[in-house]
This record gives sequence, C-alpha cells and structure tokens, in this order.
Amino acid sequence: MSKQADSALTQMRRAHEEQVLSLLRTRGALSRRELGLRSGLSRTTLHDIISGLMSNGTVVSAAQESSPRGRGRPAESITLNPGAGQAVGIDFARQHVHVAIVNVAHEIIGSADEAHAADLPWPDRVAIAERLIARLTDSVVTLDSLTGIGVGVVGPGAGHAGTPPWTGTVKNRLNTRFGVPVLVDNNTRLAALGESVWGVAEGHQDVVYLRLSHGVGGGLILGGSLHRGAHGISGELGHITVDPDGPACPCGNHGCLETVASVNAITTAYQQAGGHPGEFPDLLTDLKDDKPRARVLVNRVGALTGRVLAGVCNSVGPELVVVGGDLTQCGDAFLEPLEAALRAQVMPAARRDLQVRVATLGDAGAALGAIALVLHESPLLARYLTDTTGEGDDS
Amino acid sequence: MSKQADSALTQMRRAHEEQVLSLLRTRGALSRRELGLRSGLSRTTLHDIISGLMSNGTVVSAAQESSPRGRGRPAESITLNPGAGQAVGIDFARQHVHVAIVNVAHEIIGSADEAHAADLPWPDRVAIAERLIARLTDSVVTLDSLTGIGVGVVGPGAGHAGTPPWTGTVKNRLNTRFGVPVLVDNNTRLAALGESVWGVAEGHQDVVYLRLSHGVGGGLILGGSLHRGAHGISGELGHITVDPDGPACPCGNHGCLETVASVNAITTAYQQAGGHPGEFPDLLTDLKDDKPRARVLVNRVGALTGRVLAGVCNSVGPELVVVGGDLTQCGDAFLEPLEAALRAQVMPAARRDLQVRVATLGDAGAALGAIALVLHESPLLARYLTDTTGEGDDS
Repeated sequence: MSKQADSALTQMRRAHEEQVLSLLRTRGALSRRELGLRSGLSRTTLHDIISGLMSNGTVVSAAQESSPRGRGRPAESITLNPGAGQAVGIDFARQHVHVAIVNVAHEIIGSADEAHAADLPWPDRVAIAERLIARLTDSVVTLDSLTGIGVGVVGPGAGHAGTPPWTGTVKNRLNTRFGVPVLVDNNTRLAALGESVWGVAEGHQDVVYLRLSHGVGGGLILGGSLHRGAHGISGELGHITVDPDGPACPCGNHGCLETVASVNAITTAYQQAGGHPGEFPDLLTDLKDDKPRARVLVNRVGALTGRVLAGVCNSVGPELVVVGGDLTQCGDAFLEPLEAALRAQVMPAARRDLQVRVATLGDAGAALGAIALVLHESPLLARYLTDTTGEGDDS
Repeated sequence: MSKQADSALTQMRRAHEEQVLSLLRTRGALSRRELGLRSGLSRTTLHDIISGLMSNGTVVSAAQESSPRGRGRPAESITLNPGAGQAVGIDFARQHVHVAIVNVAHEIIGSADEAHAADLPWPDRVAIAERLIARLTDSVVTLDSLTGIGVGVVGPGAGHAGTPPWTGTVKNRLNTRFGVPVLVDNNTRLAALGESVWGVAEGHQDVVYLRLSHGVGGGLILGGSLHRGAHGISGELGHITVDPDGPACPCGNHGCLETVASVNAITTAYQQAGGHPGEFPDLLTDLKDDKPRARVLVNRVGALTGRVLAGVCNSVGPELVVVGGDLTQCGDAFLEPLEAALRAQVMPAARRDLQVRVATLGDAGAALGAIALVLHESPLLARYLTDTTGEGDDS
C-alpha cells in the first residue's frame, strides 16, 4: 500500500510537471502567476514543481522585457531552457524550400530558404532542405538536442489522398537522417498555426486564415488548436465555388476562389481587361500609379474574397480573420473592399467583434507552423520527464 | 509524507472514477473492453473502479441487447444507474415549446410539446414548459434526482447579442424553481448536438448540420464536441449570402440562404412562379403529383443549398452532413440535387468519403440536444464523486 501510494505520488508529480512543461512549450515564457492560473495548480505545488525543474536545468527564469525598469521588482518569467532543445521546421512549397529553427523557449534562432523549379524531383528538394539545415546549424546552432522536425507539404498531409506520394518517403528519410520524430501536415494550415503562435494571431483562440498567392488556401485555428477535419481536408477556402460556370481549377472543379483570387488569375484577368500585358509586379506598379483599370479589378477581387470569407465566418464564428500571401501586396486597394464585403455579409450580430489583420510571418509562416506542430504535439518532452523525475522526487 | 501520498492516491482514484463516469455520461452504455480502450486504464484499475461504482449504486451492469442469444455469454455492458438521475431539455422555438426528459443512462423517458403564437410573451412560454414538465413527471418519472436543465433558445445563446433579452431571466427562474444548474445555448446548434448523441450522427466526430424550416440555421460538431465560435455565433449557415442583391433577410443582410431555402421563401417563390397560391403543404402535394413547376423550383433550391454546404465542407472538412427541418419533407426532389451539387463542388479529394444523411430526431432534436449539453457539461456528476469517494477508497 505504501509503495502503491508512493508510486501514485510520483505519477501525480509527473502529471503536474508535464502540465507546466506543456504550457511553457505551447505558450513560451509565462509568469508564475500565469502558470498558476492556466495550470490550476496551487502556489505551493507550483513552487515545488518549478524549483525541481530549475534545479535540473529544464526551465530557467528571466526578467520579462516588458516590465518597466526601476519600478519595483522586474516581473520574473519562467521559460524552457533555450539550450535544452531545438525544433526544425521545413516547408516544401511549390517552388521553394523554407527552413526555420526554433529553440524550446520559442526563440527563432535561424531561417533560410531556396527557390527551385516547380518540377524539381523530391530527392533534390530534400537535399536542399538538408543543405539549408546544415548551413544554419554551422552558423547559429548545433543540433545536439533536436527534439523533432515538422514538415509542411502541399495537399492534405501524410496518408491522405491529394498529398504528394513522396511525402511518406521524405518523412522516413528525415527520421533516419536526424533520429527524431517527423510530423507532417498541409503547409497552408501550418502557416495558420504559425501565425497563431508567433504571428498576428498570437493568443487568439478561433482564427480563420486565408492565404492568396499562386495557390489559394487557408487554415482554421479552433479553440486554440489547428483544426484538421475528418479526412485531412479542411481550410480549403481557395476551393469554395464562387461561380459554378467559371474556369477550370487545378483541383478539378470550376469557378473556385483560386480561379479568381490567385496571382496568376488576377494577372491574367488584368491582361484580358486590357491592362499591362506583363507579370504580377507590373500590376502592383500600375496599382501604385493608381491606374483605374488596375484599381477596379483589384477592388472587385477583394470584394469577392471578402464575400467568401463572410460565409466561412458565419459557419465557424472566429474572432479574427488573417489574410496572407502575395495578393496582400496589393494593399488597401485589395484589403479595404475585402474587409468591407466581409463585414457587410457576415451576420450583423458578429460584425462588431470581428477583427481582420494581415499575416506577419510572410513566406516563413509554414516552416514556423511546422515547428509549432512539433512543440505542441511531439511526445518528445517526455524525454525531459524521464530525465528529471528520477531525481528530487522526495525533496 | 504518508498522508500526502494517501491524498495523492485518493486524487488519482477520483480522477480515474471521473474518467469512467464521464465516458458513460457522454457515450451511454459501454462494454468493459470499450471502457478500457477509451480510458486508457489498465484492466485491474478498471475492475477496481467499476466494482467501487457498482457497490454504491452509481453504475449498473446489463446484458447488451445486441448480443446473440444462446451463443456463449451475452456481452455485458456498464451504464450509469438509470434511477440515479434525470436531465430535462427545453426548446423555446419560435412557435413551440418542446420538453424532453432523459435519464443519465441515456434513455429517453418522455417528451412533449405545445404550439403557441409567435408573439407569446416569455412568462407564458415558461409556464408552458413548466406545465409540460409537470405532465411528464406525473406520468412517467419523478424529478427527485434531477441533475440539470438544458435550454435551447433562438439566437447565439445566453449573454450574447441577438439572443432574446429574456433568456437570462428564464434561466434564473428555472434555476430557482428546480434548484439545479440551467445551461443555455442556441437551439439549432443544440439540435446538431442532439443528432450527434441520439440521432443519425451518433458516434461521428466532425459533422455539419443544416436545418431548413421557417428559419434556416445549423451547427458544427468538431472533434466530437459542439463548436460555439468566439462570440457565440457559429453554424449560421442560413445567413451565408447566396445573392448580395437578393431580398432582405430578417438578420439585416440581403440574399442569405434563408431568403431562398426557408419554408416561407420557397412557398412565396412557388406562388410567384404561378404555382398553387397556397401554403407549404400545397407545394408538397404538388410535388407528390410531380407537377413540373414544383419540381423545378424545389430542384433549384436543393442545388443552391448543396452549393452553400460545399463551401462549408471545404472550410470545415466534416465526415458527415446532416440535413433536417421542414424542407426535407420535399424528399428526393430536394435532397438529390442538394447532394449532387454538394458532391460536385466539394474538393474532389473529399468527395468520396463525405456522407450526407437526413436528421432523424425531428422537432424534439433541440430539446434532446439541450439534455446532451447537461450530460456533457454539467458539473453535476461531481455529486456522484462526492457521494462515492468517501467510501471504499482503501478497499
């Protein structure tokens, strides 16, 4: 009975430690007060747990940057030991490989990217990723304590129809090469997760994210977590039909938002409307020069995009809509009609509280989101627990 | 230290008991094997926990109905003691009050409803609810062990803009009258929850529910739970714009799905198209007689509804779409074009796995969903724990 009771106590303590570590892993630095509020642990228990984790170097304390200097004690914050682990994020986008490295204290410690041809075979893409990781780790960090690798891919994610067939092989190869778990998801969904951890949606619970570049996609953060959907297909806002009789979409349907609000679609429409017969940057130049044809077209596409977003918001009820991707470079000519149409067509009761913001992480968003996936979902922090719960239990 | 360890053991045991009770409360009857799989508890621990809960009458065992007679032992299932508690659900719909009573073993033990004028003041509506409860409890059940009351209302739910201002008062009045917690939510969302617990969506994790009657609304079940959204507004599928230049909608916008696919909208459109100048049942009769005008109109509205649903499915990625409400009485003339348009416009990768079904709970759906809200979210089962953990801890 006493042995059983001791083992129950050890289990309880592990559960409390895991709770504290999990909060620091997903939220970054927190004050003792925030840790108490979020964990529901008593002050005494929390004090014991934090002391134990500090004595074995798993967490460290730091003065919070935002505390006003000279007025009383600076507020102390607790964070995972930045030297105790890193996570790597890789985004295999259509024509780019992006890599980012973050430590477990949520500090971004390096990122890099390289463009390639759209038809580059997958072994060459993986080679680019390995080269970028090597370059970053040479210069800024060693991978002694890599905790996991997150990977973003085009399509619904590993094991689902529509994901490149090489995804599973890439996963195995990275796993073999680095000896850590490799987690895979859709790269646009991961960009949504990235914005909710490091970007403009930080701290928001219910977020709709829309990204308009060469492809158009999105992601939903619901209740603070990435929503995946039943078969790995969700957040596919670029494939909501805007005109059933519209042009063919790469997805196989007709008249999807992507056939109207992607870089190619808007550039082609501009040419057809008699505008500059060039590329997307030429449209941006004409917009800057306030050429009416450019403005009218971009206004119209913005309004249509806002209408699609309103439908999504009526379904999902987010507090925040984040818009990212190349089309945001069109600025207010695109974003103002978008927001106006969104507010006009969302249910009046939801109109006042809804916020609309532009994404802040740019092209690194999906790689950072892939890291968030590792920090949120990898069982690797279990390693800390194995290392730490052996000592100091009876202190 | 020993005292601390004993208290940790007690806490562990309580946590395990709460896990088992919570599974039985939300899932109904389960076999020991299912309980083991879902709780993650070992066979020995589970045996101890169930024995304890049986000895104080909190749970009972029953032979499962579906087990084949005469072949080996009938499979045993564990359920909460049906006599140990009831929950009441009340749906204050536009022109009806529905009441249902369920025991904690998930058995529906009575339901009743009463129609009233659309402008009936709220004290009279509450009086109807109390009368219906009294009638049911006279005939089938006593409320000795009522665990909670769930209430469905029009609008986003208590405390949010757009909900009838009397909602809070009704909540207080029922709480005072019956002395138990009262939980309130939007009645269409609750109907979605009802279908996922007792109806056609039972056991599904990600469900889009659409209800088309005098109003048009919906609800999302995501990851097995009712999704609410940031400000209590979600699942408002009836207010997705289908034509920004369309007629005014009661919500304040123009051209919402509700202005096309509600009972009034479709009846009016039928009159305008030169059909029978009567009511909705006349349209149904004409459909049954296969009058072309009726068929063409209903086909068209079905296809439009399917298109809206496709957009929602591309966003949310459900495994199942449930369609309910009066318009389903139009049968295949409505449902076939709906499903065809939905499948045509959902992303091809999601098409194969998506299921479409008609709701099965009818008008009682929201009252049953209100009960599910109580069984899922009421802290009332804590009462069991308080009653049971005092005894048998050291056995």
